[in-house]
Amino acid sequence: MKLLALDTTEDSCSAALCIDDEMYWRFELAPRRHSELILPMAESLLAEAELALSQLDGLAFSRGPGSFTGIRIATGVAQGMALGADLPVVPVSTLAALAQGALREQGARQVLSALDARMGEVYWAWCELEAGVMQVAGNGEQVGPAADVQFAPGEDAWGAGSGWAAHGDELMAATGIGATRVLAGQPVHARDVATLGLAALASGQAVAVEQALPVYIRDNVAAKSRKHPQAGA
Amino acid sequence: MKLLALDTTEDSCSAALCIDDEMYWRFELAPRRHSELILPMAESLLAEAELALSQLDGLAFSRGPGSFTGIRIATGVAQGMALGADLPVVPVSTLAALAQGALREQGARQVLSALDARMGEVYWAWCELEAGVMQVAGNGEQVGPAADVQFAPGEDAWGAGSGWAAHGDELMAATGIGATRVLAGQPVHARDVATLGLAALASGQAVAVEQALPVYIRDNVAAKSRKHPQAGA
Repeated sequence: MKLLALDTTEDSCSAALCIDDEMYWRFELAPRRHSELILPMAESLLAEAELALSQLDGLAFSRGPGSFTGIRIATGVAQGMALGADLPVVPVSTLAALAQGALREQGARQVLSALDARMGEVYWAWCELEAGVMQVAGNGEQVGPAADVQFAPGEDAWGAGSGWAAHGDELMAATGIGATRVLAGQPVHARDVATLGLAALASGQAVAVEQALPVYIRDNVAAKSRKHPQAGA
Repeated sequence: MKLLALDTTEDSCSAALCIDDEMYWRFELAPRRHSELILPMAESLLAEAELALSQLDGLAFSRGPGSFTGIRIATGVAQGMALGADLPVVPVSTLAALAQGALREQGARQVLSALDARMGEVYWAWCELEAGVMQVAGNGEQVGPAADVQFAPGEDAWGAGSGWAAHGDELMAATGIGATRVLAGQPVHARDVATLGLAALASGQAVAVEQALPVYIRDNVAAKSRKHPQAGA
């Protein structure tokens, strides 16, 4: 199976190309330069592998939750590629991808993924290993103050994501996960989006291009943003 | 020539398909729903014409200036489509597209295009008819307070765009253009992006996909946005 994965969720930008058991990727920390970087990353991966987009079996992209603008960029590029090359597409949860990264890095099997959602809140989900990959478990993806996170971890649970960097003390207090098991600096990475995308593709979870949409969790982001029009939204 | 054009600059979202002398389009006023609408719009236009993306001669998209998030969506979708279907792509100025709309609607030949840039400013450019289409003239695209706009209009100059809705009095005072010649409610429309895209394509101005980038004009939008992280940027 050949799959291209894209991530522009937070300040980093990455693309990964999976060809059977091999994984190739580009990763750059580049706040606000996603529109410039994501295409050249994808192109260089394809060029190196001497593949055209149309030779892939599918596309995966980080569909959120996360930065409002960032997830729209990945969504837009994935939508365009899918329509242009007639490929099935898999929207992947950024929180599941964070947990997959913790599995890859640390062998974690249970992860409280949390992304900084600004406004004093985190996007969070409790993720567990299921059918070989990390999946959102518990009550699904949520947004709220870190102090309100409800999670009864096993002894070997990990924390991962920028939510832990922004609200580590509250999250540790709320979950009982200790500092030595927190990967606060771990970004969402296209490698993990690719792994989850492949699993979803193999189990028939690809969607039509017009269903390849962002997931915001926070219903009222539009209303809140409109109070701050000077942010250029 | 067959060309698809996309616009998601402001609160409206539109797509246009030009097949030789025929123009077909979809248009919707849909703030914050661009990611959901732009692909189905493009798909339905192509389906009606029984065309695949790869049968087109090129793509055009609104490359800004305009809403930070909006122009990134159009850019992302156009980048993805261009890479997926291997098509040349033409980034089109939103200010020139506004002027082209004023030409289409009113026969205007000289237009002060202005988009609301928030923070008390407008994106603006003086556009003139040249080689059959409206093009940015004068000192190019600029951003600043409406009262600072410098423009010495001919007697038959028009004003167009949301900048006139937000700062009409200042713009009329600065330019001498009277209220009866102001199209303040005129949106950027993919039809006009298509017309300008065709002209650019015909004159060899298409670019490689990695050069299909947004144009922001306002250099410091990132810095300003960072002061307002609660806007979900």
